[in-house]
Amino acid sequence: MFESAEIGHSIDKETYDAEVPALREALLEAQYELKQQARFPVIVLINGIEGAGKGETVKLLNEWMDPRMIDVLTFDQQTDEELARPPAWRYWRALPPKGRMGVFFGNWYSQMLQGRVHGQFKDAVLDQAITGAERLEQMLCDEGALIIKFWFHLSKKQMKARLKSLKDDPLHSWKISPLDWQQSETYDRFVRFGERVLRRTSRDYAPWHIVEGVDPNYRSLAVGRILLDSLQAALANNPKGKHQGNVAPLGQSIDQRSLLGALDMTLRLDKPDYQEQLVSEQARLAGLLRDKRMRRHALVAVFEGNDAAGKGGAIRRVAAALDPRQYRIVPIAAPTEEERAQPYLWRFWRHIPARGKFTIFDRSWYGRVLVERVEGFCSPADWMRAYGEINDFEEQLVNAGVVLVKFWLAIDQQTQLERFEEREQIPFKRYKITEDDWRNREKWDDYSQAVGDMVDRTSSEIAPWTLVEANDKRWARVKVLRTINEAIEAAFAKDKK
Amino acid sequence: MFESAEIGHSIDKETYDAEVPALREALLEAQYELKQQARFPVIVLINGIEGAGKGETVKLLNEWMDPRMIDVLTFDQQTDEELARPPAWRYWRALPPKGRMGVFFGNWYSQMLQGRVHGQFKDAVLDQAITGAERLEQMLCDEGALIIKFWFHLSKKQMKARLKSLKDDPLHSWKISPLDWQQSETYDRFVRFGERVLRRTSRDYAPWHIVEGVDPNYRSLAVGRILLDSLQAALANNPKGKHQGNVAPLGQSIDQRSLLGALDMTLRLDKPDYQEQLVSEQARLAGLLRDKRMRRHALVAVFEGNDAAGKGGAIRRVAAALDPRQYRIVPIAAPTEEERAQPYLWRFWRHIPARGKFTIFDRSWYGRVLVERVEGFCSPADWMRAYGEINDFEEQLVNAGVVLVKFWLAIDQQTQLERFEEREQIPFKRYKITEDDWRNREKWDDYSQAVGDMVDRTSSEIAPWTLVEANDKRWARVKVLRTINEAIEAAFAKDKK
Repeated sequence: MFESAEIGHSIDKETYDAEVPALREALLEAQYELKQQARFPVIVLINGIEGAGKGETVKLLNEWMDPRMIDVLTFDQQTDEELARPPAWRYWRALPPKGRMGVFFGNWYSQMLQGRVHGQFKDAVLDQAITGAERLEQMLCDEGALIIKFWFHLSKKQMKARLKSLKDDPLHSWKISPLDWQQSETYDRFVRFGERVLRRTSRDYAPWHIVEGVDPNYRSLAVGRILLDSLQAALANNPKGKHQGNVAPLGQSIDQRSLLGALDMTLRLDKPDYQEQLVSEQARLAGLLRDKRMRRHALVAVFEGNDAAGKGGAIRRVAAALDPRQYRIVPIAAPTEEERAQPYLWRFWRHIPARGKFTIFDRSWYGRVLVERVEGFCSPADWMRAYGEINDFEEQLVNAGVVLVKFWLAIDQQTQLERFEEREQIPFKRYKITEDDWRNREKWDDYSQAVGDMVDRTSSEIAPWTLVEANDKRWARVKVLRTINEAIEAAFAKDKK
Repeated sequence: MFESAEIGHSIDKETYDAEVPALREALLEAQYELKQQARFPVIVLINGIEGAGKGETVKLLNEWMDPRMIDVLTFDQQTDEELARPPAWRYWRALPPKGRMGVFFGNWYSQMLQGRVHGQFKDAVLDQAITGAERLEQMLCDEGALIIKFWFHLSKKQMKARLKSLKDDPLHSWKISPLDWQQSETYDRFVRFGERVLRRTSRDYAPWHIVEGVDPNYRSLAVGRILLDSLQAALANNPKGKHQGNVAPLGQSIDQRSLLGALDMTLRLDKPDYQEQLVSEQARLAGLLRDKRMRRHALVAVFEGNDAAGKGGAIRRVAAALDPRQYRIVPIAAPTEEERAQPYLWRFWRHIPARGKFTIFDRSWYGRVLVERVEGFCSPADWMRAYGEINDFEEQLVNAGVVLVKFWLAIDQQTQLERFEEREQIPFKRYKITEDDWRNREKWDDYSQAVGDMVDRTSSEIAPWTLVEANDKRWARVKVLRTINEAIEAAFAKDKK
């Protein structure tokens, strides 16, 4: 979930200086239009890691926009008046009216996260708070509000460096409270529970936007753009003032960096190493699947990737390790008539393996947010809500003991071209290349965007994505096998606790 | 929540025999249309009290309709295959395809209720299950499904009588399992947790329908009608096959009985009794509000009722007992400009009293489902979702220690007419009667229906409605005061536990 926000996004000073004036002007314009229409309020929620630039960003927004139309609200210790009333009262009294923008620091999410991180309650109570937040936001959106949720992120390393540099600088040290330091220690818990909260409360009408906080230029531009896109979409759409059913736009990458772009595509294995590692990982997999601890688990492996990235070959190397009675390969193509008569997840539910078994999905439920999104086979509202539905689905699998591994096999455009051409020349491979493949290739950038959003919104501690550098098939196959083996072993290790 | 389903609804044999043929024909027609369109599946959930006629009703539906297009599914003990997979798998494999109807006995709700009633887990885990059910249903509706949820109800007395009669009849005794008897013992828990589940999962796109189960004729006709209305609405609307955003129709009363109609409007107090009881209840209230246990609570009293039912007079008798610094009266009329710029609950949140204080709402947030519904000031989708939003709101109040009492002051049409005429003749009362009052009077039946739905959907153990027979003002005033006093004492008693 935070993968894209740990790759070192940055914007150089020239680009930043060139872009800011137009952005500021557009934001101001949107703000006046908001006031003019006075059809809906805007609620901006600010959450995330300490030191990731939350305060700086809000300060900047006030500089960029007209601060007379923004209410910045911090919710820290409850006042006497607040303590004497239901917890939500403090938020209700602070709601911005139609035509205005309220920036909520320390909102309902910070409250539930603090409580869970400090062990004041367990997951079930956290889930109650999550449901409460969802109902509140759903109601606010039904009443017309536009809610924009930002999570400012830093990797653990980035955070430590950041806190240290701030501490060393006498001009900044006042910014660091003891609580912040405490959070440095509890970073892991904060991120873990944060992920649970984000996974469950990212909805089509109010999705989370995760912003990497290291580089101030990137951070500021990213937030400004998302704010602008959301405002403009809401001002344009929706004469009835309801954002429900409308879909909030997801942010576009604003620097050249992306998760896929950050992969080292030169990774490779030479033949002897490959032979040795392949055999050893296959033997390891065979052993793990025969292990009696496997009776408490099932294994599900999802293979997605660029056309010609080598999914088939990788799957064959996995299968080669196993007794055919242990696994099943489910290739996903166009749905059958029976499947079209059901909700889209139905065709995958029917193939969920029993405990002790292994199912390999050659393409999967992620078609919804990949091909169906890019080709327009379903509406934006449909694929936007699919992220949450898929997270719910996978959480159910994992809770029932399924070990879930998800692979995106990535190749670069040049490699794909070579493989396509090769396929066209080799007679027995010619069936593997179709007009569709060439057409998909023209939408390379759209697919890359879709893959990025998919990983950002569905990679989580319980069901992480593994991006596989697949320019070299040997490297890819060994990485796939090793990842599966490590996932099974991690599940076994967890059983013991 | 179950008030309307304990008043002894019944349909005589002649009416029943006269109505059934047309209903059957219409149901069959709807069923064929469903098959023809093949746009969406229908999922019927059957829940409720043992012995309330669940099985009989489903049997009857199969007789009335074409059973070839209905799949009746019972979910009892999990099979080996089901146990080896995530819990939801058993429901997914049983989903009806588009164009068909699935009747789910023993569905996700029965499972969570059994678990909670038998103490296998606490409320927080129940709430997790509730959220899971909500997400499942939301997704199914987004995917086009029509979900119709029935709760068959019996009062405790009715249930005992029913179980006894079935047991005594040798032809029927096979129907009663040990589990049923056990449920007779755990009736209270079943109803209490059932109410929590219904309150939270009744949504505009998939509301619960509560059906009194005592009289087979009533029960059968009620279910048939609701089924028909829901089917017809879904078949007519919504060419895109999405019921999300559409509003499922609420059932209309099909016999002459209603909650308001069941009130004994002849109840009255003579003057000496009134004087004595009034003074004593006022003294009791004054004492309770000064009690130091009140520091942990606030008091909120909501007054709704027919025009000229005597709300003002009752409120004055309550206030007369108190020091003006202790309470505040908030009259609710048309919202101010500031209030119109906010979500509709905002104007009530701002008046929520601090602990130790008492706020009287002269009309309230229920305007949304009364005047706004009847006069069309908001859309059906808006007032339908308001039931859930109000329940959420009141639950927050009660969780924070607020003692919440809600009064509907009911008079009959004749009494209202007399009071209107009297007001027009007495100079100092003339300001109290307006054109609006006469106009509202013409919508008497619409208001009665709205009041019935309001009580059914927002009266719960945590925030029950009190219907006050107000033809006699003395009776009404004393009942109001006594109800407030009892509610405070009940809250004090609960604190001790």
